[in-house]
Amino acid sequence: MSNDDHASSPAGAQAPAAVRAESGDCRWRDVPLMAYKDEGSAPFRDVSRQVLFDDTRLGCELRYFEVAPGGHSTLERHEHVHAVMILRGAGRCLVGDRVYAVAERDLVAVPPLAWHQFRADAHAPLGFLCLVNQERDRPQLPAADDLAALRRVAEVAAFIRTGDDNDA
Amino acid sequence: MSNDDHASSPAGAQAPAAVRAESGDCRWRDVPLMAYKDEGSAPFRDVSRQVLFDDTRLGCELRYFEVAPGGHSTLERHEHVHAVMILRGAGRCLVGDRVYAVAERDLVAVPPLAWHQFRADAHAPLGFLCLVNQERDRPQLPAADDLAALRRVAEVAAFIRTGDDNDA
Repeated sequence: MSNDDHASSPAGAQAPAAVRAESGDCRWRDVPLMAYKDEGSAPFRDVSRQVLFDDTRLGCELRYFEVAPGGHSTLERHEHVHAVMILRGAGRCLVGDRVYAVAERDLVAVPPLAWHQFRADAHAPLGFLCLVNQERDRPQLPAADDLAALRRVAEVAAFIRTGDDNDA
Repeated sequence: MSNDDHASSPAGAQAPAAVRAESGDCRWRDVPLMAYKDEGSAPFRDVSRQVLFDDTRLGCELRYFEVAPGGHSTLERHEHVHAVMILRGAGRCLVGDRVYAVAERDLVAVPPLAWHQFRADAHAPLGFLCLVNQERDRPQLPAADDLAALRRVAEVAAFIRTGDDNDA
């Protein structure tokens, strides 16, 4: 949708415009397309990030991540929880020790310290909203013994992408 | 999407299932369809509510509201902010002293104490995600002088629905 004049936002210039239209293709007016993480800081492939809402008065932040076809987010865990809604496309995700197929509008809850990873299907992107507390800990990457434990479940072993030679 | 076995959720029986599939028509597995508000407590028409995430560790709650074709939410304001994404259909919303057309995936930010109301188009529902801080004040309804002030803007006067005879 198009709303061309955002100048009269009652909260003033520092507040976001009242309405920020989706400009198509899951991009939004006034929302920059950002790198998912610093290249080389963790294994991932073809993921972008947009911060949709980060008003401190909300207590949380709403981000939109999009994994390109064939790509994947980082396999990681942390104390903070994720609340996810798939917005676009299809794929699979690991939560804990299970792999789930997900598609548009499905909800995913990632509990504290649950290993998780999102993968887009080979021929579709996987775009999802991800809600987090504004106060949160940094993600942890799996150590060798964590990976060994994860790989005890055959489905998980075949699913995870860690950037190393043991990826199925 | 369908995931039939939610029994092994690692966080146990009291946590939501890791994945709650959309079962079609913006209804979700294990998410009850609720009344928007108590009937008679405030003016509204044909609105339903579903709470998608309310884990206290998030700091916020994510709800899904759906306004049926021709319906409207309550004209109200409060200190807490709303962060909204349109998920389905089309309509218009008042934020402050302006009316905006909105459609799927558009973002709406409602600042503190901004009067706001959502109306679905005549022939489409308007479904939207609404994010709020888990600690929040109760909505205020407009008094006569608030309505008089709102109606000084012709577009707003024509838009608002208050349940009284002055609705355009």
